[in-house]
Amino acid sequence: MGVAFKPVRPASLQISGADPLQRLANLGLSLPRAPGAVAAYVPWAITGNLLMTSGQLPWIDGELLYKGKIGRDLTADQGYDACQLATLNAIAQLADALGDLRRVRRIVRLEGTLNVAPGFTTHPTVLNGASDLIFAVFADAGRHTRMIYTNPEMPLDCACLIVVYAEIEAR
Amino acid sequence: MGVAFKPVRPASLQISGADPLQRLANLGLSLPRAPGAVAAYVPWAITGNLLMTSGQLPWIDGELLYKGKIGRDLTADQGYDACQLATLNAIAQLADALGDLRRVRRIVRLEGTLNVAPGFTTHPTVLNGASDLIFAVFADAGRHTRMIYTNPEMPLDCACLIVVYAEIEAR
Amino acid sequence: MGVAFKPVRPASLQISGADPLQRLANLGLSLPRAPGAVAAYVPWAITGNLLMTSGQLPWIDGELLYKGKIGRDLTADQGYDACQLATLNAIAQLADALGDLRRVRRIVRLEGTLNVAPGFTTHPTVLNGASDLIFAVFADAGRHTRMIYTNPEMPLDCACLIVVYAEIEAR
Repeated sequence: MGVAFKPVRPASLQISGADPLQRLANLGLSLPRAPGAVAAYVPWAITGNLLMTSGQLPWIDGELLYKGKIGRDLTADQGYDACQLATLNAIAQLADALGDLRRVRRIVRLEGTLNVAPGFTTHPTVLNGASDLIFAVFADAGRHTRMIYTNPEMPLDCACLIVVYAEIEAR
Repeated sequence: MGVAFKPVRPASLQISGADPLQRLANLGLSLPRAPGAVAAYVPWAITGNLLMTSGQLPWIDGELLYKGKIGRDLTADQGYDACQLATLNAIAQLADALGDLRRVRRIVRLEGTLNVAPGFTTHPTVLNGASDLIFAVFADAGRHTRMIYTNPEMPLDCACLIVVYAEIEAR
Repeated sequence: MGVAFKPVRPASLQISGADPLQRLANLGLSLPRAPGAVAAYVPWAITGNLLMTSGQLPWIDGELLYKGKIGRDLTADQGYDACQLATLNAIAQLADALGDLRRVRRIVRLEGTLNVAPGFTTHPTVLNGASDLIFAVFADAGRHTRMIYTNPEMPLDCACLIVVYAEIEAR
């Protein structure tokens, strides 16, 4: 698990590099393989200048790294890391869709659904695991709107699901 | 209930027919009456080339056919059927909006919110009730992104709520 | 609390005035200060002709006026008021984005996430607190699609979160 994904802690999430791929590399991150279409549905779609992803899980190569409820089975820090990993998968989908992440004009929206324990209320800090990565990778083009959900029972008991909407260059 | 809606099981959800209406008929399905506007809000809206629906329930003529929690009050198969019926209502809204379903260029997104029992984790299979129908009716134009939610308390205790986004031909 | 926000009851939510700001004033409402960007994310974004907000809470100047579960800690009427206040904040974001609310061509979508007690099922009436205000302020341009969610644990234990999507005049 540590081999496949080494989360970057908030203090190290600095913008460094000329474009998204360089910034990812400078953070010590590489894009996971973007899981492909699953029969009737697909991991991303483009309509007009809008690129949207399906819900992304905190997994790598089919191995779910973060399961259970944040605030009970996982710490808030692990929840942060889970959001970072699921967002890394979302960015991998954007790269698969566009070929080149420089075609992202702006990340316009992030939606995060969290699996939290009863009484947990510090969701915003956890979802910063997604927001901070987007900002570190896309810089000013990564300033997004966002919405936080919590759901009582998540698919495969995953810790989070992340959705990203990006405005892209016209084709 | 059996009179109003006879669900199609997955093995029978084949693409057969030249256009969406024919494919629906070949599946033995007909479009329910699309419920109209409820005062301040409306069942569908178009902005640009994007057509979006409000949340659709698994009902026919105001009778809610699937209530309660999937995995407790309803089996997973009944959850599948509930998603199919709510999606049939969503397709009825698209038809009401467009006049002709052939004006759908692509179903770009499906969002399904499920009412599941504690410990239930096989949501994706249940929401396939929506995805499989969309693919059977719209074929390649039905390959959509999707997102799954679960909510603890659903309006009217319905088993699911389905939202569809479609890219449509320019007017 | 009564000083900062005096909710308008449904019977008084009439359309009166020539434009959104006048209608707000005639309802006895004024726009709260629109909270600004929070580091990596922002309260609104525009892509094409679509303006979207982040999730809006039922607060004024950082004071959360409606906390807890509707149907237990709050009455359904208070839930209605909470949705009205969060929507007032969403409208403040639209005004901040556009300068002039007359640039809203149409409110195309409202998404409301509610914090409800177990067994509560009359969500639609509660979310009417948002829908009724939008219709009273934007009149025919306020006829929106909508989707209701419930979440088990809300950020800061807020009673609701409101998201608004508006189609705007081309720039």
